[in-house]
Amino acid sequence: MVEVRFEQISPADFFYRNRDIAGFSNPSRSLYMSIRELVENSLDACEAGRIPPDVLIDLRAQANESEGDVKVYRLTVKDNGIGVESDYIPKAFGTILFGSKYGFKQSRGTFGVGGTMALLYGQITTNNPFRVISSTGKKEIHEYSMMIDIVENKPKIIEHKKHPNQNGWRGTIIDYTLEADYTNSRSKIIEYLINTSIINPHANLTFIDPRGRVYSFMRVIDEIPVPPKEARPHPLGVDVETMNRLLASTKARDVTTFLIREFQKVGRVTALEVLKLTDIDPKQRPKDLSHDQVTMLVDAIKRYGKFRAPDPSSLSPVGKEFLEKGIRSILEPEFINVVQRPPSSYSGIPFIVEVAVAYGGKIPISDEIHLYRFANKIPLLYDERADVSWKVINERIDWSSYKVMKEAPLAIFTSICSPKVPYKTVGKEAIADRPEIERELVIAVREAARHLRGYLTQIEKGEEVKKRLNVYAKYLPKVVKLSSELAGTNPPDITPLLKRVGVTKAMIKEVEEQEAKESEEILIGGEE
Amino acid sequence: MVEVRFEQISPADFFYRNRDIAGFSNPSRSLYMSIRELVENSLDACEAGRIPPDVLIDLRAQANESEGDVKVYRLTVKDNGIGVESDYIPKAFGTILFGSKYGFKQSRGTFGVGGTMALLYGQITTNNPFRVISSTGKKEIHEYSMMIDIVENKPKIIEHKKHPNQNGWRGTIIDYTLEADYTNSRSKIIEYLINTSIINPHANLTFIDPRGRVYSFMRVIDEIPVPPKEARPHPLGVDVETMNRLLASTKARDVTTFLIREFQKVGRVTALEVLKLTDIDPKQRPKDLSHDQVTMLVDAIKRYGKFRAPDPSSLSPVGKEFLEKGIRSILEPEFINVVQRPPSSYSGIPFIVEVAVAYGGKIPISDEIHLYRFANKIPLLYDERADVSWKVINERIDWSSYKVMKEAPLAIFTSICSPKVPYKTVGKEAIADRPEIERELVIAVREAARHLRGYLTQIEKGEEVKKRLNVYAKYLPKVVKLSSELAGTNPPDITPLLKRVGVTKAMIKEVEEQEAKESEEILIGGEE
Repeated sequence: MVEVRFEQISPADFFYRNRDIAGFSNPSRSLYMSIRELVENSLDACEAGRIPPDVLIDLRAQANESEGDVKVYRLTVKDNGIGVESDYIPKAFGTILFGSKYGFKQSRGTFGVGGTMALLYGQITTNNPFRVISSTGKKEIHEYSMMIDIVENKPKIIEHKKHPNQNGWRGTIIDYTLEADYTNSRSKIIEYLINTSIINPHANLTFIDPRGRVYSFMRVIDEIPVPPKEARPHPLGVDVETMNRLLASTKARDVTTFLIREFQKVGRVTALEVLKLTDIDPKQRPKDLSHDQVTMLVDAIKRYGKFRAPDPSSLSPVGKEFLEKGIRSILEPEFINVVQRPPSSYSGIPFIVEVAVAYGGKIPISDEIHLYRFANKIPLLYDERADVSWKVINERIDWSSYKVMKEAPLAIFTSICSPKVPYKTVGKEAIADRPEIERELVIAVREAARHLRGYLTQIEKGEEVKKRLNVYAKYLPKVVKLSSELAGTNPPDITPLLKRVGVTKAMIKEVEEQEAKESEEILIGGEE
Repeated sequence: MVEVRFEQISPADFFYRNRDIAGFSNPSRSLYMSIRELVENSLDACEAGRIPPDVLIDLRAQANESEGDVKVYRLTVKDNGIGVESDYIPKAFGTILFGSKYGFKQSRGTFGVGGTMALLYGQITTNNPFRVISSTGKKEIHEYSMMIDIVENKPKIIEHKKHPNQNGWRGTIIDYTLEADYTNSRSKIIEYLINTSIINPHANLTFIDPRGRVYSFMRVIDEIPVPPKEARPHPLGVDVETMNRLLASTKARDVTTFLIREFQKVGRVTALEVLKLTDIDPKQRPKDLSHDQVTMLVDAIKRYGKFRAPDPSSLSPVGKEFLEKGIRSILEPEFINVVQRPPSSYSGIPFIVEVAVAYGGKIPISDEIHLYRFANKIPLLYDERADVSWKVINERIDWSSYKVMKEAPLAIFTSICSPKVPYKTVGKEAIADRPEIERELVIAVREAARHLRGYLTQIEKGEEVKKRLNVYAKYLPKVVKLSSELAGTNPPDITPLLKRVGVTKAMIKEVEEQEAKESEEILIGGEE
């Protein structure tokens, strides 16, 4: 007989044991992750209150007793967001899988894991408590000093101080120590901040690094983006679990009203048509649906196939002009085309795909396409090759059919926004290849690529025309000159003739200069 | 004022909401994941009892009402493992983060998530209960019909039947329905089974696919691998959380004994040397250590730097001969070199890296290296490019310095075994770049690559020598013939001369044939 022991572990213990799955793999990536998770919480806290974000990140090395790149650092992240009510502070920062309930609304943070995970990482590497200072703008500022009881997944409050809030300050400060490697994460952190500020141009981001260098990314627009609204689920792809939860909580008295009220894009006609695909009486009470009827209803919704596209008001895409402006400012491409797809959905969750294809300018020529990925206005920098966007641009698109050479100055930007981005990892690095998202990406990239092909065809044609004209520009004057000499006459003015075939004086000059240069090169070559 | 609602969700709800992070992204990959998770549980259940595994996987399409590739399937996985005690069955299969407690011992399943996740996926896509039939070989066979209460993360038992176990059967059968896409997952499933059988040659694996095709992978050795033993943690890299847990549970009366008893590779001398780096009295009681003393102790262990390598008895590597045999049987390479690194550790967890470099034979020539990844004797097929092995062979190794051309018939096998493989995802697809593992991989690949360079140099030299001899073979007979003609004498026998410089008759013949062919080609070329 083999004795097997079983055990139940808490979510905090699960993430403690498996911190790699939350992106905390090593001291360099853990620092990147910590900054990222806290900055994204800060941006969400500002967006929730339509506040132009001011986020300060201060990273300082503690007593430098250790050699090597791995040191103990103190990280402080301060924002001017909506703050957290005192009663919620301990659980919000000291419990894994406890978080704001955003419902069906787009937000940067999605798992209720990241912020607490950053603090948990600090605790297990330095054994120090962390501090959370927050105020919602009311009379008091609350300062908590805490640790996390990992086995129990709950906060241990070490100290709770209250300070009078004389200036009506509102926001949150997180302050803690962690073992980290700044030397090897610096470039990723800076890249992250640059890309975050490009996609959030209404935010002030300031980073003071351990050497005292200040990186400032100041807001370039004062307008605050329209925050996404919370929306009801779209029926397409809703599974039995969600259906059961909605049935259990609805106040509707009959199943027809239930469908109309609890889902978006379902009117009376649609509701009745869906129910006709089942044996459910439209007047049946939602709570009386049998197990099999629920299955039948979910199946009917899957087969119905005539729902309107989901409501995009829960989404806040980057915007075509915006993406173009951002890309032009960094890459100065010769060509750019931005495609924004109409809203689509997977498993009842709406999403919008935006894609930009940029060519030339500052984009380096390479046999690898430069891919920039964004999701809900945060940049994704790691694990590019595991992302659905990478798969689409490298495995689904035949670039040669768009006249793109193997080595080309090509950059692709993909942005997905959704109340729930299907990340593959809790570290939010790569997006899974959900077929609906892959399909939208393929359509968007193809559309932008067609415009690129048009542009490249133009250039090709332009080059041919130029070549032909160059022949005129080069030989016509010579032929005329020679003919005149042979005839013993003065050469006629051929400018009107050249003008008629499209050759300008500038072109003739260019050709002459080119010839002069070539003969010079021959001379130099001869001297060797 | 912005109202923010907070909520706590259960681990089951977390994985339900984020099933992409467990690898259940779409109906095709979800089928692959389901089979994989259940097969790996079965192999672990056999290994625990040193039983030669017989695993049967039966997949059948249910009533084919749906068109397209996505259908409802019934999946049954049966094994002859140690079985699960009746009392544990509901929780073991109906609760997320509840699993066998292996401690510090290598096993395929690691998260307490996979098996339950497969059943949860079946439930949310088909709304049917699942069946678990199991016996530990005692008097009764237990059959449970269950569903999972996702919100509460606990099993709902629908039916529990007991059958007399007349033949003393021992094992587990899982039987449930799920929405899946076999058409698009077939090749990955077969590849998975082939690779699993290569690395587990003591197992019988039988797969009956929905079209009734039977794929059988029969055991080729009867010997059962020595199962890994449970081991104490290695001190290197142990963090404060683990230290606190060990301090709380130890029976040792003083901190010296505590270090010797609770850790591997710590004797009296080592324990005292470590404690000398702190202000802790070697006779202090473990439970009396202050918060700061725990921090100090962990720091001292980090700085000590003289621990012996971790005990490999908790590990069960594939083995050099074994890996070589497996690779030769499929790829028939001209060259192969297998390196097994000595045990190493990260964060107190031992691991062994094994690497094989194979060249030529059936390996197709490509500018991409063919990478085969294994971890704890399971193949990893997805997300290759997010894996530390991919990073090492593509970004850390300069293959040109090992005389490998850009396009080459090169295959690399990496195998990592550890009581805790640091997967990046709960879907166990990619291994994180923990610096310690990356370092071991780099060393192993370099060592194998040096042997490859030796082999390629040999070939190069061989080719040069052959070229030189070819010159003799080609011209010496002609020079002799011409000289004889000029001198008007009969040509002497030059065979002894040629033999002395190393030219054989076969070589002369080959050269003559080559010349004949070349002149023919010139003729053909001339006719064009």
